Amino acid sequence: MMKKRILMVVMDGLGDRGCRSLGGLTPLQVAETPNLDWFAQNGSSGIMDLISPGVRPGSDTSHLSLLGYEPYSVYKGRGPFEAAGIGLVGRKGDVAFRCNFSTVDEAMNVVDRRAGRVKEPDTVELVNALQGMTIQGIEVHVRQGTEHRAALLLRGPGLSADVSDADPHEMGPVLESRPLSPGADLTARVVNEFVRRSYEIWKDHPVNQRRRQEGLPEANILLPRGAGSFPDIDPFPQKHGMKAACVAGVGMIKGICGICGLDVLDVPEACTGGLDTDMIAKAEAALSALKEYDFVLMNIKAPDLTGHDGHAEEKLKVVRRLDTMAAYIRERLEDDMVVAFTADHCTPVDAGDHTGDPVPLTIYTQGLVQDRCQSFNEADCAYGRLGRLRGCDLLPVLMDMANRSTKFGA
Amino acid sequence: MMKKRILMVVMDGLGDRGCRSLGGLTPLQVAETPNLDWFAQNGSSGIMDLISPGVRPGSDTSHLSLLGYEPYSVYKGRGPFEAAGIGLVGRKGDVAFRCNFSTVDEAMNVVDRRAGRVKEPDTVELVNALQGMTIQGIEVHVRQGTEHRAALLLRGPGLSADVSDADPHEMGPVLESRPLSPGADLTARVVNEFVRRSYEIWKDHPVNQRRRQEGLPEANILLPRGAGSFPDIDPFPQKHGMKAACVAGVGMIKGICGICGLDVLDVPEACTGGLDTDMIAKAEAALSALKEYDFVLMNIKAPDLTGHDGHAEEKLKVVRRLDTMAAYIRERLEDDMVVAFTADHCTPVDAGDHTGDPVPLTIYTQGLVQDRCQSFNEADCAYGRLGRLRGCDLLPVLMDMANRSTKFGA
Repeated sequence: MMKKRILMVVMDGLGDRGCRSLGGLTPLQVAETPNLDWFAQNGSSGIMDLISPGVRPGSDTSHLSLLGYEPYSVYKGRGPFEAAGIGLVGRKGDVAFRCNFSTVDEAMNVVDRRAGRVKEPDTVELVNALQGMTIQGIEVHVRQGTEHRAALLLRGPGLSADVSDADPHEMGPVLESRPLSPGADLTARVVNEFVRRSYEIWKDHPVNQRRRQEGLPEANILLPRGAGSFPDIDPFPQKHGMKAACVAGVGMIKGICGICGLDVLDVPEACTGGLDTDMIAKAEAALSALKEYDFVLMNIKAPDLTGHDGHAEEKLKVVRRLDTMAAYIRERLEDDMVVAFTADHCTPVDAGDHTGDPVPLTIYTQGLVQDRCQSFNEADCAYGRLGRLRGCDLLPVLMDMANRSTKFGA
Repeated sequence: MMKKRILMVVMDGLGDRGCRSLGGLTPLQVAETPNLDWFAQNGSSGIMDLISPGVRPGSDTSHLSLLGYEPYSVYKGRGPFEAAGIGLVGRKGDVAFRCNFSTVDEAMNVVDRRAGRVKEPDTVELVNALQGMTIQGIEVHVRQGTEHRAALLLRGPGLSADVSDADPHEMGPVLESRPLSPGADLTARVVNEFVRRSYEIWKDHPVNQRRRQEGLPEANILLPRGAGSFPDIDPFPQKHGMKAACVAGVGMIKGICGICGLDVLDVPEACTGGLDTDMIAKAEAALSALKEYDFVLMNIKAPDLTGHDGHAEEKLKVVRRLDTMAAYIRERLEDDMVVAFTADHCTPVDAGDHTGDPVPLTIYTQGLVQDRCQSFNEADCAYGRLGRLRGCDLLPVLMDMANRSTKFGA
């Protein structure tokens, strides 16, 4: 059997519910999508619960599913994925936190949780001032994210993620991180000492002297929350026997793919993670990667953004652009390619957030069994022959269609 | 997102197989059901395995599933549910038994397992004579059910449900309850002492003196069977974050809902648990409860009874009445309501008992994705977009449609 290459196109948040402003139909049902429909007509379709029926997936847990991992056994809190998303990819045993640059007064009361939404280059300079720190034998790594967001990674023996937040999540006194189980004392002490040092180092830092003069809230403390252990993930290339890469704009998706051992390709012009992303350039990058890699995951964030914003008309426009991207891929299909079009969750415009509805799925490759599904949308894909799958079943299905699955038994 | 309220309409035993007397069709396929069909046409449909494909559910295990519990991990024997069904709702650690009022001769041989189907007020008087008993430090609670049925609940330290029955299940000597595992000795001793005392207290009780005179079998012993531990159930309101109630006529359903922490509403005129139930009054009670509660489960026992009796014509009549009830609900729909019509199992008239066939399911709310299912029955619902669900997936699906699900991940 010829081993094929797999392209998984994840149209983030694409699935929807019946929209009031679209007469009870979904954007996918309303928009003309001749190319996505061509894949449905010539492929096999179904619907898919990323986690399980009715469960609202995060983008992190759903991508773990899409990469063939059981999310309930692998997902150990958001911290590590946020950290990995901004380039702090840890390893088993490391503990990571999401952090905010915040403003405290002299009595250590939080007066602005986001330090006036401080951003680069101030955050870069401030983070540089914390580098190279070791506390009680534990290496401390910090990295800034977008605006007031940052991540903290601790590395060393005897760490535990079972500690409470230093961030009070509201105005008021900075909290002491407390151990939540025996064996977490060291980590709590390190977190508290780190928070204290961030204040000591930053309170009179030139950046904050300048911000004071300009009347801006000082970014004078870094407050960790959401501790999580880096999961012990069997790297994707070893687990599935495929050289794998991802093309994505959003930090968290890159982080997940990085933690799972995929090569995260940098395509700055195509990967903005915003509505302005150049989908054709992204498809080009993914198809080009497929010359070197056995598996490429491509994430397009735009539909999710329009869902969160509650803009049916914007989502319609994004759907039409996705169809143009599908045309680009269709024109470049090769016999040894398996292509899947799907979503990581629904973000219905009338809900404005992720929901647990199943997402549409169409898989195309030369030589599969065609079914009766004629159009790629939430309703029609349910009439495809794939039925209703779980997210973590998709990768095995694709690998089997790619003649890459191993036999269980003789 | 607007949080919606959920009404789950459980039409007990509704699903069927092709009936000989109906030309191979099911009662749902034969009866005109324009209102149930309206819900199918405007909602999302599917079929559902309450436990798993081909497994015949009891009404107890299936309702646990419908309430979002994994029945294999929660269900620990029938005793606790029977006990709770007649008002003996215990707590973790309690052990409960189903019991029969029986007749024994002087050699302690059972001569009538049902004591001539003794009933109230005799059973009430006899049970009163047993109240307030403590045996070896264990509290003993007894309650009569319908006719010759009763329940026994033991409460105290060191109990185990791993004991054999005192009821021989046939004519012959009363059995000694035996411990079936180490640590069950105390419980077996308490059961045996309780059985002995029931005989001592009842053999010359005025009720039995009178029954002797009237030539009726004496109810002179209470024989426990089917020991079960009260499960450690995470109460529904805490587990799912919804204030919840049930409207039901059958004791066991009330018992299950009670054990799960739902408020069991008393609507005597509507909740007979029989064929004579006033379905409209029941729907009215359920809709009224929905003003105060986030979730209401409504159980209608009538279709199950006609299935057990093997009466296709009677089941057809019940189906038509269910459709009238559906009309009543349809006329009172509000935008913030999610309504599910389904069954807890099939009770096909030609089988005369529960079967493991999947049941039909239709969910309606404003703004969901419509599908191609046009009529509510065992065959057509299989062509809805929900596909084939598990019973314990239904509640998460309904909660997600009600915008009440929590996100797993970020």
